[in-house]
Amino acid sequence: MTSDTTKRFAVAELHAFAASALQAAGLRSGDAETVADALVQADCRGAASHGLIRLPFLIARVRDGGANAQAQLQTVVDAPAIAVLDANGALGPVAASHGMRLAIEKASQAGVGVTTVRNSDFIGTCAHSAMLALDAGMIGMTWTNGHPGMAPWGGRANGIGNNPLAFAIPGGRGAPVVLDIAMSVVAGGKVRHAAKTGEQIPHGWVVDAQGNDTSRPEDFPAGGALLALGHKGYGLAVVGEVLGGVLAGASILGGIPQWFTATDKRVGNGHFHMALDLSRFVAPGQFAERMDELRNSMRDIARRPGVEEILLPGEGAERREREALANGVALPEAVIGDLAGLASFYNLIMPQALA
Amino acid sequence: MTSDTTKRFAVAELHAFAASALQAAGLRSGDAETVADALVQADCRGAASHGLIRLPFLIARVRDGGANAQAQLQTVVDAPAIAVLDANGALGPVAASHGMRLAIEKASQAGVGVTTVRNSDFIGTCAHSAMLALDAGMIGMTWTNGHPGMAPWGGRANGIGNNPLAFAIPGGRGAPVVLDIAMSVVAGGKVRHAAKTGEQIPHGWVVDAQGNDTSRPEDFPAGGALLALGHKGYGLAVVGEVLGGVLAGASILGGIPQWFTATDKRVGNGHFHMALDLSRFVAPGQFAERMDELRNSMRDIARRPGVEEILLPGEGAERREREALANGVALPEAVIGDLAGLASFYNLIMPQALA
Repeated sequence: MTSDTTKRFAVAELHAFAASALQAAGLRSGDAETVADALVQADCRGAASHGLIRLPFLIARVRDGGANAQAQLQTVVDAPAIAVLDANGALGPVAASHGMRLAIEKASQAGVGVTTVRNSDFIGTCAHSAMLALDAGMIGMTWTNGHPGMAPWGGRANGIGNNPLAFAIPGGRGAPVVLDIAMSVVAGGKVRHAAKTGEQIPHGWVVDAQGNDTSRPEDFPAGGALLALGHKGYGLAVVGEVLGGVLAGASILGGIPQWFTATDKRVGNGHFHMALDLSRFVAPGQFAERMDELRNSMRDIARRPGVEEILLPGEGAERREREALANGVALPEAVIGDLAGLASFYNLIMPQALA
Repeated sequence: MTSDTTKRFAVAELHAFAASALQAAGLRSGDAETVADALVQADCRGAASHGLIRLPFLIARVRDGGANAQAQLQTVVDAPAIAVLDANGALGPVAASHGMRLAIEKASQAGVGVTTVRNSDFIGTCAHSAMLALDAGMIGMTWTNGHPGMAPWGGRANGIGNNPLAFAIPGGRGAPVVLDIAMSVVAGGKVRHAAKTGEQIPHGWVVDAQGNDTSRPEDFPAGGALLALGHKGYGLAVVGEVLGGVLAGASILGGIPQWFTATDKRVGNGHFHMALDLSRFVAPGQFAERMDELRNSMRDIARRPGVEEILLPGEGAERREREALANGVALPEAVIGDLAGLASFYNLIMPQALA
């Protein structure tokens, strides 16, 4: 939580508000609920950059025609363990949830289910759809491609998306393991935030327009580029471009417009979803015990100076989510203002801050 | 190639020699060929740390009883799209090749095939088994767990394997995309090499026994630990531990001995293999064209100072492999000495260096 978060709101109220706004913008009720889920979950789990801050942009995409509010998702390939979906321009969380649900359905029959989705839109967090597998006691995986906002390894200009990847894994007695990572060192939003607050950034995050190291965050929007997480991050971004883009028959690389500026253009990116029914591979009780062993083993490792606890991916997010569900989620003033603007535009009741 | 590589050998001769030595150590002919393939391929593709330098250790594992020369691999779960294998202590490349071949067979029916392997041994490169999918025109993926030689994020002691992951993807008119990465910043072998040559290492590669940054490579074997590729690398190592270990019903974490020191102990680690029949998802011609587009797009990005070319993962390795097949592969004196030792021990004809 940053210092400009001043007011807290009940999670259920924010969810209902977001769903109402999306319905007012033209989405069917179920799809509006799905997108609201994705946004509010991100705020609750500490991924505020993918939370309600995005609601005005998503609504702009629908209003300006880039996204298709009433899209009918079409299954273009259907086999017992795999499927290919055409999302027909549905908002990303709608397309991704549909893709993952179908993968889960297939995995419940075949042990594994893989689906690809083409003609999608900005996915939001990959964790949201991957985590749908948890309710079925399965392992979920979502990988997407996107607008090229990162330099390839050795490059100094944007050339490929930072193509986020998420895994969600049932966690035994503890939180599920949820890993959700983009293949750049840091997200572009973090660099833009530093530019706003006048902070310097470490070398290695971005290069300037000439391809040189820089600690000035303002060099990034001025023609610079995000750097990949080493050659390994670049390599994973390439694999994400193949699985989420090429294999899906989706748009790739420069064929994908920037979703939040080109709000009237089809994004057309794609995703790859996999569900694994772990009970077909090992006894679920044994799986759960080993996950507990994994968590406990990491916790018992000697720590570096200043480190309080060693966590599995997703443990911290689950704690934040519990806290948000109990005590509300804090929103920055700017986001509150955006929501108030939508309330006024669509004549909705603005959620009240908690006392 | 490092400066101490003085002599070159014909690839086919090295392959035949390695296979003969492994057969002499007790492996069946087909399994000996598979292990020889894996080792020589690594030398040819520039991964010398996983090449013939490992042959004496693998033979020691068989001789000392840690690995099972005559292992019969057993399918313990078999379904149309998935399988679980018990490798019964077979050498890793044998277990992994078997696992990937079965995944390919399943994918040719179901579109996707996933296999897990338990009771395996040191896998060598993950690329070797992943690349078996290429011959079938498929995408291959191999993920393994291993001895805990890396600190978890925030930790200062070894706690988890650096759990390598490989993808192999048909590359259109160009080289296949082959990504093979461990989840540490660098391999332990690189740090040990710097310690031998007296070089300093950059901060961020390892921590010393107290968990502090160090540029002294000798701090690593003296109780220090390899660092993960950030929290993202740690998170991926955890997922690799789950897919390659927990889901496979294999040994995990501290249950896995160090394969090259505990040569009389079963390693017992596991792998996860996936094959995707891309032709079930998109037209193969379209897939190939988009892979060419991907390669050409990366090549056309403006480069950082000093960078000659932007490649896809695996392009450099393929060039090295072609060069090795044409002109032989260079081996360091120490490796040549090891091979000569095996030749003498098993009464085999030592390959002759090329003129």
